[in-house]
Amino acid sequence: MDNKLKISGIVLFLTILFVSGVHAENGYELWLRYNPLENQSVANDYKKSLKEVVVFGNSETSEAIKKELSIGLKGLLSVEYKVGSNAEVDNCLVVGTPKNSPFIAQLSINEKLQKLGDEGYLIYTIDKGAKQRIVIASQTEIGALYGTFHFLRLLQTQQNISDLKIEESPKTTHRLLNHWDNLDRTVERGYAGFSIWDWHKLPDFIDTRYVDYARANASVGINGAVVNNVNANALILTDQYLHKLLALAKVFRPYGVKVYLTARFSAPIEIGGLSTADPLDANVINWWNEKAKEIYSIIPDFGGFLVKANSEGQPGPQQYGRNHADGANMLAKAVAPFGGVVMWRAFVYDNNVPDDRAKQAYNEFQPLDGKFPENVFVQVKNGAIDFQPREPFHPLFGAMPKTPLMMEFQITQEYLGCATHLVYLAPLYEECLDADTYVKGEGSTVAKVVDGSLNSHKYSGMAGVSNIGNDINWCGHPFAQANWYAYGRLAWNPENSSEQIADEWIRQTFTNNQKFIDVVKPMMMNSRETAVNYMTPLGLHHQMAWNHHWGPGPWVNIGRLDWTSPYYSKADSFGIGFDRSSKGSNAVSQYSTSVKDKFDKLESCPEEFLLWFHHVPWDYKLKNGQTLWNGMVDKYYGGAESVKKMQNDWESIKGLIDNERFYHVSQLLNIQANEAIWWRNACLLYFQQFSKQPIPANYEQPNKALDYYQNLKFRFVPGISN
Amino acid sequence: MDNKLKISGIVLFLTILFVSGVHAENGYELWLRYNPLENQSVANDYKKSLKEVVVFGNSETSEAIKKELSIGLKGLLSVEYKVGSNAEVDNCLVVGTPKNSPFIAQLSINEKLQKLGDEGYLIYTIDKGAKQRIVIASQTEIGALYGTFHFLRLLQTQQNISDLKIEESPKTTHRLLNHWDNLDRTVERGYAGFSIWDWHKLPDFIDTRYVDYARANASVGINGAVVNNVNANALILTDQYLHKLLALAKVFRPYGVKVYLTARFSAPIEIGGLSTADPLDANVINWWNEKAKEIYSIIPDFGGFLVKANSEGQPGPQQYGRNHADGANMLAKAVAPFGGVVMWRAFVYDNNVPDDRAKQAYNEFQPLDGKFPENVFVQVKNGAIDFQPREPFHPLFGAMPKTPLMMEFQITQEYLGCATHLVYLAPLYEECLDADTYVKGEGSTVAKVVDGSLNSHKYSGMAGVSNIGNDINWCGHPFAQANWYAYGRLAWNPENSSEQIADEWIRQTFTNNQKFIDVVKPMMMNSRETAVNYMTPLGLHHQMAWNHHWGPGPWVNIGRLDWTSPYYSKADSFGIGFDRSSKGSNAVSQYSTSVKDKFDKLESCPEEFLLWFHHVPWDYKLKNGQTLWNGMVDKYYGGAESVKKMQNDWESIKGLIDNERFYHVSQLLNIQANEAIWWRNACLLYFQQFSKQPIPANYEQPNKALDYYQNLKFRFVPGISN
Repeated sequence: MDNKLKISGIVLFLTILFVSGVHAENGYELWLRYNPLENQSVANDYKKSLKEVVVFGNSETSEAIKKELSIGLKGLLSVEYKVGSNAEVDNCLVVGTPKNSPFIAQLSINEKLQKLGDEGYLIYTIDKGAKQRIVIASQTEIGALYGTFHFLRLLQTQQNISDLKIEESPKTTHRLLNHWDNLDRTVERGYAGFSIWDWHKLPDFIDTRYVDYARANASVGINGAVVNNVNANALILTDQYLHKLLALAKVFRPYGVKVYLTARFSAPIEIGGLSTADPLDANVINWWNEKAKEIYSIIPDFGGFLVKANSEGQPGPQQYGRNHADGANMLAKAVAPFGGVVMWRAFVYDNNVPDDRAKQAYNEFQPLDGKFPENVFVQVKNGAIDFQPREPFHPLFGAMPKTPLMMEFQITQEYLGCATHLVYLAPLYEECLDADTYVKGEGSTVAKVVDGSLNSHKYSGMAGVSNIGNDINWCGHPFAQANWYAYGRLAWNPENSSEQIADEWIRQTFTNNQKFIDVVKPMMMNSRETAVNYMTPLGLHHQMAWNHHWGPGPWVNIGRLDWTSPYYSKADSFGIGFDRSSKGSNAVSQYSTSVKDKFDKLESCPEEFLLWFHHVPWDYKLKNGQTLWNGMVDKYYGGAESVKKMQNDWESIKGLIDNERFYHVSQLLNIQANEAIWWRNACLLYFQQFSKQPIPANYEQPNKALDYYQNLKFRFVPGISN
Repeated sequence: MDNKLKISGIVLFLTILFVSGVHAENGYELWLRYNPLENQSVANDYKKSLKEVVVFGNSETSEAIKKELSIGLKGLLSVEYKVGSNAEVDNCLVVGTPKNSPFIAQLSINEKLQKLGDEGYLIYTIDKGAKQRIVIASQTEIGALYGTFHFLRLLQTQQNISDLKIEESPKTTHRLLNHWDNLDRTVERGYAGFSIWDWHKLPDFIDTRYVDYARANASVGINGAVVNNVNANALILTDQYLHKLLALAKVFRPYGVKVYLTARFSAPIEIGGLSTADPLDANVINWWNEKAKEIYSIIPDFGGFLVKANSEGQPGPQQYGRNHADGANMLAKAVAPFGGVVMWRAFVYDNNVPDDRAKQAYNEFQPLDGKFPENVFVQVKNGAIDFQPREPFHPLFGAMPKTPLMMEFQITQEYLGCATHLVYLAPLYEECLDADTYVKGEGSTVAKVVDGSLNSHKYSGMAGVSNIGNDINWCGHPFAQANWYAYGRLAWNPENSSEQIADEWIRQTFTNNQKFIDVVKPMMMNSRETAVNYMTPLGLHHQMAWNHHWGPGPWVNIGRLDWTSPYYSKADSFGIGFDRSSKGSNAVSQYSTSVKDKFDKLESCPEEFLLWFHHVPWDYKLKNGQTLWNGMVDKYYGGAESVKKMQNDWESIKGLIDNERFYHVSQLLNIQANEAIWWRNACLLYFQQFSKQPIPANYEQPNKALDYYQNLKFRFVPGISN
């Protein structure tokens, strides 16, 4: 009966009362908001350079380009363009390919375009005779669409377009969203409402949202979507659902977004009527071959399968005494004739609790390197545990040179405050991508493993677990949209800068007002470190509440051992932290020598990973001279304090943007501030049982006892079935 | 594997591609769209009469009035008003109450306002000295808010406002929405996405949607919301959830909308730790008394409880050998000191299958008339079965003169095509309200029972089972919004006209363009009869698919007998229909004599209720000379044909409204057309087994056999757990 978390009252009602109205800023437009440019002189310059707009081609993709330029330029410049097809005019924008336009074909850029590949593009200014033109050109119309979005971004962010010389091409071939969406429209670990896929009304009702989803993805270069949950239902592979999927494929196709499905490994039994799903069984092999043929006969550009097998209760080849390669390769052969790929997840743990779960994926997969055909990705989470606020990079990166490893990032904030905490995740992605594996000497970054440049592979790619739901603003938190955006920009080029991405996202989504940017960009850039500090500082991990993962739960001690929190904290009277050094579980040995050496020694181990790799005494002296306990206290308090600063910062930009999104964010920051204190108090009071040391008197003492936090119970938390 | 319903392909893709854009018409604004008036001369007249806007008072409700006038007039007239407080100007609008305004107080309208009651209002033009003013006045600020919405409706529908003399007051005291929303955000029989109540983020996050929900309700006079499902979860009665409810109550209060809860009868056991829920047990009585005190201490204007007891597995007093009055009265006593009411549902059926389910509610409740205190409503569905496309009025109306009967209509389309069929329900409501019970002679209409004018009661009211979900456009189908709107307008005055309501809804929601109205209003007005014809003509009922109720299922023969379709159709080689005449189950005897006599005789029974009351031979001659079988065929084909006409009609108005809503509706009409044929073929092929007569050759013959339809299987249909 006292299961409520006492958090502060409602934000002053009257302020809320006045936020809505006709055509309110509800966030639906994402970063494609195209509001009139604030800087009139910049807008006037643009208008001078854009007297006419010419788009070549008549395909659906060309139509999409025309549409995007029309609504984009109308929004930004308040000019209604009639898209033409005569490029022989001064001060025009010309978009096309050598194939759909003789004008583009005669520009002597064919070789350059070939080098940029099918998805690459040029944006450049030409002065030919008296006429000045901006040309967006690509080998393909999809490339031209990408170039168009790039060009619109230049305008949205008020860049100079007077002498453009842009050459772009993606560093990876596969840039996917993974939707953990169930067929009943619940979304596993989804915090923005329910699934945007209305399977019941498909294929006959096409929600406008599907088009806008494809537009948003194309605008950042995402070129594929696994539409259903990795905890899969075989029903999606039946004819009824494949025709629903076809309807989505038709909507996405003009935007270059392919559809993919998760394949439930036991589908041959569940919908095929077979008695086994053994990947070496002839009937099973035949069933998957026929299923692939059926799928491709309906959707010729189907992307392929994502598989979670032998993990958390999902069926898989190990049930039949086979290994992951046996399973993956069977599916890979089925889709290979059609150009499809298989993404086989390395996130596995079986029913036997290992000595250290962090080691299991490596142990199972590293020996399989070289056993996969070229159309199999092994899809690896950024860290070895599970999307924690901070993890060291997964030891598989660099350890499977013969296999393309697909990076799996989580965009949805399963462990990072659901959709109520403002946490900009690009610095997390960047930290992982920039990490150096040293497998081929210095500079062997994870980014280079992922983009394939370290070991040449036909395919390379990234997967982001989607944070999209049917909330009007797509992602729940207005700032969660930035994580979708940033994921796409990093999948396109893993070496992009998180700060640069934040800058352009803010300008597109909110405003080019420099005062706003100067406040909000640092707020975003610091937000992930802030969350680490109030949740799991110094390398702590997996301290969240049971099952729903919302809020702290360092005491959680039910279920299998490696689902409990104490398994990971190892807090005791001596100290805290999981000893993965060579004296402990020796997980460090999975890294290359120089990385291993750094992590293995307490002195050289970076403090942000201290308790990940070491069991450290409470009185250990940190680099800043604090004891471990006092340092932990300082981190937790600092994290909670930083959220208060975010609140103050946000208040300071009031009036610079619309009230609706302003209050949306300020209410959520209020929740975050209270939950940060919840995390801080619950964790420190729990660990204090072991440290037996006080929270120094200069900190505001927790006003609740540990058992208050331990007794909080919540049902119907989003993201799981209750 | 062949479980798909073959319906036509996607509407031409390119047309869709162009519908969305910045600030798209997504339907979120409902009938409060406030788009600029098309008729400039009307708009200019309005501007002349509205040089200034004066709103008195500083309460939240007065602020709501100011806000609504500001956004409404800005939208309609493109004029930004600064709401003032000096009424001594010419050509102004003045809104206030005698209490908040000396100006209103001295108008000598106090007596009239008193007569109109707390929710009534005056809108009238005064010429005093040289100054002309429009006054909106009420005893209360809520009344003034209602008047304001009425006034804005006049403008939205382009009415003359030069000499206003409007007196309005609601005919009922309780005008409620019933949300069948679960705490996990699924909605029982909900087809517009998921619940708009985001319980997890409450009380700290106030979605703008909550405000807009309250605005929409207030605009049609809805003054209460039961926020959770009648199949109740006791958790909502705990402190944690009551504080979430408080947050909603605070948002709704300025708009005159009270919050109500469903009370799970076994809550004293489930959350109270008692061993019984016996309504005569002292501990149980005390528990509910204390619970009521607790609720009212948190929410002083809490409305009361809605209870579904001893029905479809819900707990209730009969488990303890008590009757419905025992249960209702215990709760009524608990809330009476605080002004609360109890709405006890008459929709009951127990575990024993009765000879005729249609009779059960009457049998259980009629004898209890006079046993309830004044703050108990018995809440009765419009018909005795369950929200079928057509039912005769429930025999309880008129049969319990000592008890206020609350009408329960279903707004969500459980049996009427979910959210994909365009069915304007106001004619269904109107047909029931206009029905004459004859209990006090001719003119004893159901409307007069419901509004309390036939037998004087302190309370009177109506409940509508909500069709609201978190779809951007609230109700799924753009035209389903009309049912929410019309329900509210009829709850306010059960004698309003469905056609008039359609007219004003169209103008507010779409356009005042007469060509559009001339096409769309008849389309709406005929749509319910159309649905009856392709689903269950001539008094047929309960022929839908198992469990999810989507699509036809005349063969459904699983579960308890009175859940099956043949129980209701009684189709056999002799004929079809349920004999409820005096020779059959004698359900007719539950009506007053003149109604009974009319229904009892085959010759006088209206043909729309023929098979409801009679088992009729296949060769029975209908009034138009057709045999029953041929007449049924004609109705089914006519229904499907009417949907095709709706499609053509809709195509004819293309260009008169925005593309986005145009295509939304045209896609849904396409679905409806195909599903009408599905209903028609499935039902006729099934009944043909018994009639053994052909579908006359002049009709297009079904191109599928009965077993095709019987083998269709669908999972994850919205509105239930699968």
